[in-house]
Formats: sequence, structure tokens, C-alpha cells
Amino acid sequence: MKLAGAPRRTIEAAADGASVVVLDQTLLPFGVDWRRLATLDDAADAIRTMVVRGAPLIGVTAAYGVALAMRADPTDRGLAHAVRVLAATRPTAVNLRWALDEVRRRVEPLAPSARRAAAWAAAAALADDDVATNLAIGRHGLAAIREVAERTGRVVNVLTHCNAGWLATVDGGTALAPVYAAFDAGVPVHVFVDETRPRNQGARLTAFELREHGVPCTLVADNAGGHLMQHGRVDLCLVGADRVTATGDVANKVGTYLKALAARDNGLPFLVAAPGSTIDFTLSDGVREIPIEERAATEVTTIEGVDEEGAPRTVRIAPDGVAAANPAFDVTPARLVTSIVTERGVAPATRAGLAALFPERSGAPGARP
Amino acid sequence: MKLAGAPRRTIEAAADGASVVVLDQTLLPFGVDWRRLATLDDAADAIRTMVVRGAPLIGVTAAYGVALAMRADPTDRGLAHAVRVLAATRPTAVNLRWALDEVRRRVEPLAPSARRAAAWAAAAALADDDVATNLAIGRHGLAAIREVAERTGRVVNVLTHCNAGWLATVDGGTALAPVYAAFDAGVPVHVFVDETRPRNQGARLTAFELREHGVPCTLVADNAGGHLMQHGRVDLCLVGADRVTATGDVANKVGTYLKALAARDNGLPFLVAAPGSTIDFTLSDGVREIPIEERAATEVTTIEGVDEEGAPRTVRIAPDGVAAANPAFDVTPARLVTSIVTERGVAPATRAGLAALFPERSGAPGARP
Repeated sequence: MKLAGAPRRTIEAAADGASVVVLDQTLLPFGVDWRRLATLDDAADAIRTMVVRGAPLIGVTAAYGVALAMRADPTDRGLAHAVRVLAATRPTAVNLRWALDEVRRRVEPLAPSARRAAAWAAAAALADDDVATNLAIGRHGLAAIREVAERTGRVVNVLTHCNAGWLATVDGGTALAPVYAAFDAGVPVHVFVDETRPRNQGARLTAFELREHGVPCTLVADNAGGHLMQHGRVDLCLVGADRVTATGDVANKVGTYLKALAARDNGLPFLVAAPGSTIDFTLSDGVREIPIEERAATEVTTIEGVDEEGAPRTVRIAPDGVAAANPAFDVTPARLVTSIVTERGVAPATRAGLAALFPERSGAPGARP
Repeated sequence: MKLAGAPRRTIEAAADGASVVVLDQTLLPFGVDWRRLATLDDAADAIRTMVVRGAPLIGVTAAYGVALAMRADPTDRGLAHAVRVLAATRPTAVNLRWALDEVRRRVEPLAPSARRAAAWAAAAALADDDVATNLAIGRHGLAAIREVAERTGRVVNVLTHCNAGWLATVDGGTALAPVYAAFDAGVPVHVFVDETRPRNQGARLTAFELREHGVPCTLVADNAGGHLMQHGRVDLCLVGADRVTATGDVANKVGTYLKALAARDNGLPFLVAAPGSTIDFTLSDGVREIPIEERAATEVTTIEGVDEEGAPRTVRIAPDGVAAANPAFDVTPARLVTSIVTERGVAPATRAGLAALFPERSGAPGARP
């Protein structure tokens, strides 16, 4: 995607092969700065402090972290240490663990002298895979946007929640991939961006990255979507997913379920765009089976912004001492999801639909082992 | 309701009969201060700058404004001037106009020398009427809360949106009246308070007044309600209304519609508590007929809070220059409303239900003229 007019990835290998640079997401949208990661500790710190965020990007950063560690200590002990340190940075990130396993699998059989280059190549391959996956999601999702444009002859209004965009990936985004595909193909598209309380990923990240790429967008309070849909101002909803069950239930940022209800009530498509890796074929009832993280009350009672001088400030926005609850995700039942857009195509949010796209993982009859 | 342990009204006539004091709501919840209004201009200024807010409270403040004006100039010209100045403070406030008409009707026929006392008495009567109306709403709404408590034998969890509480009225609140009635009657009740972006009336006002009165409450992001309902953590929703159509459609703070959809999806009662004066019997299709105010984008892109030292600070919470839309209300269709609680009783959200409670206003057969 573009940043200040130039195409950039959120993580880029330096030309000297000795480091990577990452966009520091803790400063966004008020400051744009890149951070150079030259050591294992640099990489671990960037993941732990959320300089990088989003499952795909965290995985790739961890992979490069192993490569950086192999420069300093390519022994078996060095490799085990690197994997252990990186795995501990975000204990619940499944993708992180998967990426580390992938790099270790390729590097471990090699002589120490060959490990640095192999780890670097493995990390680069993971990064390129992420980009290819997102391009494919974008290609498959583009059809739904193009269909509205051709049918109505006007700008297509998409509503999205949270940030499953460029900034959560190496490039291209997941939920936003179809939007970028449409925009880049000249299909007129405009995005209503839910601010996504309490952490405001919509306001801080989605609005930022859409603006940087040049996609027209309008920020709205999370409360506004129902009203916009009632008045014909939204054509379709497009969100990402943290986890999808085998039956098509979708865990995503809290508030997603409310938008899905409004889409259903107004006869609008509710699309979930996510890589196949998000589907957990061991689960079949999202509301009962997916544990929902309860985060700190201070995320609700305080907020970070910038003052008139542009200096970062955290302010309290609730009465002193009031209790707050902060569930981070909710589950949208499959019955409210029109379809799930993956890198392999578009499926209805059903067991049969998802199994048909991913037979080798679904355990369905005919599945490859 | 109680403030710092003592029963208070939001507007109180001073013992000397020469002024009223009002709770300055612009400072809440970070500062609690009372403001003395001694002149017409004081009263007009308090309404215009939202020192007082909420339809009932604005109306009563305006009525006292006329009384204060009659101290300085009880002539016909003085009366007309006072009404004109006060009516212009909040051009769209129907209740304000109604209250002014009411005071003028009582005062105009009198000799100038009698006007001050008559206006004062009229304002006091309007204040007492508001309190009585809210007590009646509370009494009628209490049954729904008590029923849950008796059926389940545990604390009743109510979810509310925005502020239709004590602070919007002289005392007692409208949507919150049943909650206060339950609490004061010893029925165990706990309230989930939507923060109500973008103006955060839930966080700033509802959480504040519930805490002051001692009612257990938990602040949540507007996004959280669907998740809480899915997991059985809410027993019923209770909201106010800015306007109710003859058919039971409800215009209320933006985001109300999303909670009504979630209540319906989870089989929970969705109650609207509002005085009969809120019902507009000339309207029958809320989504089509009720104009929705579009407010400033800066309400979405900036927020007011206090810093570590308790000093008020406004911070920007969105990227510079990003567009924002800010519809202030939405309309919840009657089909999603379980019942409407008024000072005359509880009605289904239907034309017949509302007409039965207010036959003299509905134009229904048998209506009093």
C-alpha cells in the first residue's frame, strides 16, 4: 500500500541483509516513524510492545527475529533460545507460533553456517506468502464490490469495523484487501470506518491507511452504522476475523455482531474476509466455544490522543473510580454472515462451504490427509 | 436523587425567591459545581451553553427564566422579550417552547405587579410536575425489573444507552426512573452503561449519577452490549426517547437501534421509558419521517477528558484531516420495542397501545377533544 505516496510494506528487509525496518504502529496516526530491528531482542521487543501488530505481521516479524538471532548465534542453543524468546512475546498468538515452527523446521537440519541465510529466506518467503494470500483475498472479494458498482452505477459504500488492513499484514490487508483491489481497479469505493472503541483501531489505523492510499473514507462512531444502513448509505459490510469456526461463526473485534445484525435487518451483505488460516476446524459453536479476552478497564475509562501542540496525551473520560467491563471480541453467528472471502475463493458461512474450500483441513469426506 | 449523599434536584429555587441554582452539567463528571441564575440572561445563557440539558430540565429552567425576568421588567414588553430570548436558546427544543407557552398563558392576563409571583409559582409547578411524571414512570417500569428479580432470585442486569436520567430532568429521570424505583425499593439491580459515543453521555452523566445515588453500575463501550446479551449478562434493556411516533417507532440517541436488534436476537425485553409528551401522534413512520440531526465532525475526532492533574483537556483521537459523519440519533422500529413505559402505564409499541393510554391526544375513536 502507499504511505505518503510511495508503496511500502509494514516490514521491509534492509538492503544490507543485517536488519529489517518496521513501521512503528504505536505512534500512528499521530506520528509516522520506522524502527530498525537488528537483533533478536529488537524483534522480540517490537512484538511485545506492539510496535508491530496483526497476526500475519507478528508472524513475519518473529520469523525475521530468528534470522537476526542466527547472525549472532547460529548454534542449536541459539536457535532454541530465539524461538523461546519470540514465542513468549504474545502468548496467545497462534500465528506467531506457527511462523516460528515453520522457520525452525527449515533451519534446524542445516549446518550453523547455513542457518542465517536460510532463516532470512524463510522469513522473506513468509512475508511474500502473506502478500500473495491478501492479493488473492482481494481478487475474490472484489467481485462483490464491483457487482454493486455495476448494478447501481455509483460509488459503493462499504462499512468496516476495526483494522484488518495493510497495517495488520505485511501488505494488502485481509478485510480491506477487496477495498484496495476495487480502488486500484478503478471501481469507485468509499469506506465508512467504525472508530472501534475502546482501542479505536478504526480511527487510528484504518482511517489512516485508507487516507494514505487515497481511498475515500469517513470515520463514524460505532453507534452510527445502524442509522446509515437504515437510510441506504451502506451497500455492504466487510470485516475481518480473529477466528472462524468450521460452521462459519466469526469471532472478531467486539461490536462486529451488532453490525451484522443491522446488515441482516436491512437486507445488506455482511462479508467476512480472512485467510484460511483463521478457520479453526475443531470448533463448531463460536458463542459457546471461543473464549473472549477481557481486557483492562482503563482502555474504556481513558483514551490517548494528541493535544493542540500535537503532543501525546492520555486523558480520563469517565468518572473517577467507576467500574468498566471490556470484552475485546464478540462472535457473529454464521446465520448473519453472507459469505466468507478467503484466498481460495468465496464460501457461504457453512460447514459444507468452508470444507469445500479447505478439504485437506476440514476432516470432511474426501479430505486429503 | 442523591448527590454526595444528600437528596438534590438539578434545579432548586433559592430560599430568597430571587434566584435558582442549577448543577453545572458542563463540568460533569470531573467537577461538581452549582451555578446561581439571578437574571433572564443567566437563565438563557445556562440553556444555551448546556449548563442544563435534557428536555424536561431545559423547559423548567426556561420557566424560571421568565420568572426571573418578571423581577426586572414585568411589563407586556418585558414578558414578550423574555419568551423570545429563551425560545431562541435551543431552537429545536419542543419542550422548551411548550414550557414557555405554559408560563406565558398563566402570567399574561395578570397585572404586572402580580406576574413575578405567578411566574415563579408556574415554574415551580412545572418542576413538580416533572418529578411526579418521573415517579410515575418509575412505578410503572419497576414491575419489569421486579419480575426478573423474583423469577431469577438474583441481581437484575439492565443495559442502558445515553442519559435519560436524573440529570436530564428535575429529579428521578425518565429511562432511569424504573432503575431508581427498583433500587430504592430494595430490588437488587445493576446497570451496564453504554458510554454513548461520540458525546459520551453514558460515561460522563449516567455512570456519574448512578454512582452518586449508590446504584451498582459498570461502564462498557457501545460495542460490548451484543456480547453481554449473548452470554446472558443482560436481563433487559431500558432506554429513553427523544420522540416516539403514534405507531411506536422510537427516535433516541444514535446506537439505540443496534441494542434493540441485539435484544431481539437474544430474546430480551427492550423497554423504552419516556413521558407521554414525547409521543408525536402526527407521525407514523419514524425512519422516514423523523429528521436526524447531523452534528459536527469534531465530536467524533476529538474528545474531552482530564489529565493526570485533573485539568480538562481536549485531545484529537483521529488522523488529522480525516472526514467524519456524526448522526446524533437513530430510529428503532416499533417491531423491536417490547413496550413503552409512560407516566400513565405500560403500552405495547403499537398505535392501539399508545392511543389507549393517551386517547385525548391520539385522535383515536373515543378520544377526548
